[in-house]
Amino acid sequence: MRRFKSLLEGVERKKNSRIILALDVVAENRKKIFSRSIQILDEVCEYICALKINHHLVLPLGLFNGVKRILDRAKDLELPAIMDCKANDVGSTNRIIAENYFKAGFDAIIANPFVGWEDGLQPIFEVAEKMGRGVILLVYMSHRSAWEGYGQKIYDENTGSIKPQYVVFAEKALAWKADGAIVGATYPEKISEVHAILGKDVPIYSPGVGVQGGDLERAILAGAHYLIIGRSIVEVKEPAEAARRLRDASNKIINSIDCGMNLGS
Amino acid sequence: MRRFKSLLEGVERKKNSRIILALDVVAENRKKIFSRSIQILDEVCEYICALKINHHLVLPLGLFNGVKRILDRAKDLELPAIMDCKANDVGSTNRIIAENYFKAGFDAIIANPFVGWEDGLQPIFEVAEKMGRGVILLVYMSHRSAWEGYGQKIYDENTGSIKPQYVVFAEKALAWKADGAIVGATYPEKISEVHAILGKDVPIYSPGVGVQGGDLERAILAGAHYLIIGRSIVEVKEPAEAARRLRDASNKIINSIDCGMNLGS
Repeated sequence: MRRFKSLLEGVERKKNSRIILALDVVAENRKKIFSRSIQILDEVCEYICALKINHHLVLPLGLFNGVKRILDRAKDLELPAIMDCKANDVGSTNRIIAENYFKAGFDAIIANPFVGWEDGLQPIFEVAEKMGRGVILLVYMSHRSAWEGYGQKIYDENTGSIKPQYVVFAEKALAWKADGAIVGATYPEKISEVHAILGKDVPIYSPGVGVQGGDLERAILAGAHYLIIGRSIVEVKEPAEAARRLRDASNKIINSIDCGMNLGS
Repeated sequence: MRRFKSLLEGVERKKNSRIILALDVVAENRKKIFSRSIQILDEVCEYICALKINHHLVLPLGLFNGVKRILDRAKDLELPAIMDCKANDVGSTNRIIAENYFKAGFDAIIANPFVGWEDGLQPIFEVAEKMGRGVILLVYMSHRSAWEGYGQKIYDENTGSIKPQYVVFAEKALAWKADGAIVGATYPEKISEVHAILGKDVPIYSPGVGVQGGDLERAILAGAHYLIIGRSIVEVKEPAEAARRLRDASNKIINSIDCGMNLGS
């Protein structure tokens, strides 16, 4: 189960980067979406440790047509690829989803723990284990109404206790041995709380820096390990320059923490 | 917003069927998945009122390649098509998801209300309204661990009240003016509770009859309006015969209810 986690850690060390590119390219037609995706990937590959793909590419290009060619390119560049499908279906369909994305070349997929384990996410973890891939769970998303679901309070009838939904999800990420947990950079206080539960066992992947309003420094200081960044790289004039700046800025913060820890020890 | 609801009601009356075919075809390669899908669709079209497609087809065939051709065939057969993508992303991605599926020809998509409204599902409802399509919300799924998420108890800090998650979702389906609500046929008691909240405003679509263990009669008596049926039609030797039998069986139960109501009035 830990093969994906080790793979990503290896690339992270080699590239000295914890930036994951969210390749969410929007363009007027399929040909332009494809060529722009390849162009950005080639330009920024030096500054990132992984690639995340969403429906922006899968729906217009097709998984085994355009997306597979982008994944092949990522393989050439030695970049792991994550599919952000937020799987939340019944078990038999989740199995089909996982098998297809892994077969096309994805190294990990993102799933929603809300669906539950038995006949829910269990088949995804089984397929991932069998094929040596990873599963990353949503714990707190980055958008404005994330409070409605991820922030709601769950009452446990057996114990009488009340817990936030994201704490329940973080506990499931630990229990189910997920390879990572998503917590939005727009909610650094949630990152801190989730990090306190997960420790180093399940690294936090944090989207939402930049256009969505999340702050790089606050997210890292709160415990985010990987930063998932899309529009701030993809939709600017010079993606490579933006990616380099984000990598350098994040490394500076990470080094200051490590340095502080060394001084303190 | 009600265009999809009226469209489906029209087909339902014309075909005298409330059976929705879940075209979840599994085969060894893409060519066979495509040809088998078209074959089943042609064979059962007389007995169903709509078609539901999931990742079983979208991932191997591609949305604008194989799936669009199946949707074109459904259009020829005058069958509305629903995409079961269980959308649960941030607003900007949800917009891309809805635009792509509707552009390819889907009449409605299924979304998860867990994601919330603002910068969550709102863009999906906006795109649907603009393009005259429908949105169906998940309220209680059909699988074994549905209790983990859909059945959990939500504590409201403002009022001190405790409500099941599916009641919160049913209330959102009403407030957001959804075109339908999904409640698993495997949980007829949940169908009754949700039906008591939704009345006739939001029809209940019920998957899980047959292979998953749901009972047709209990689901309809509890308040399910449409029955979503996949494996019991798709994976048998004679799909047309199976679809006809399911249509007749459901109509018999529906007529007995109508008859009972007339006698009672």
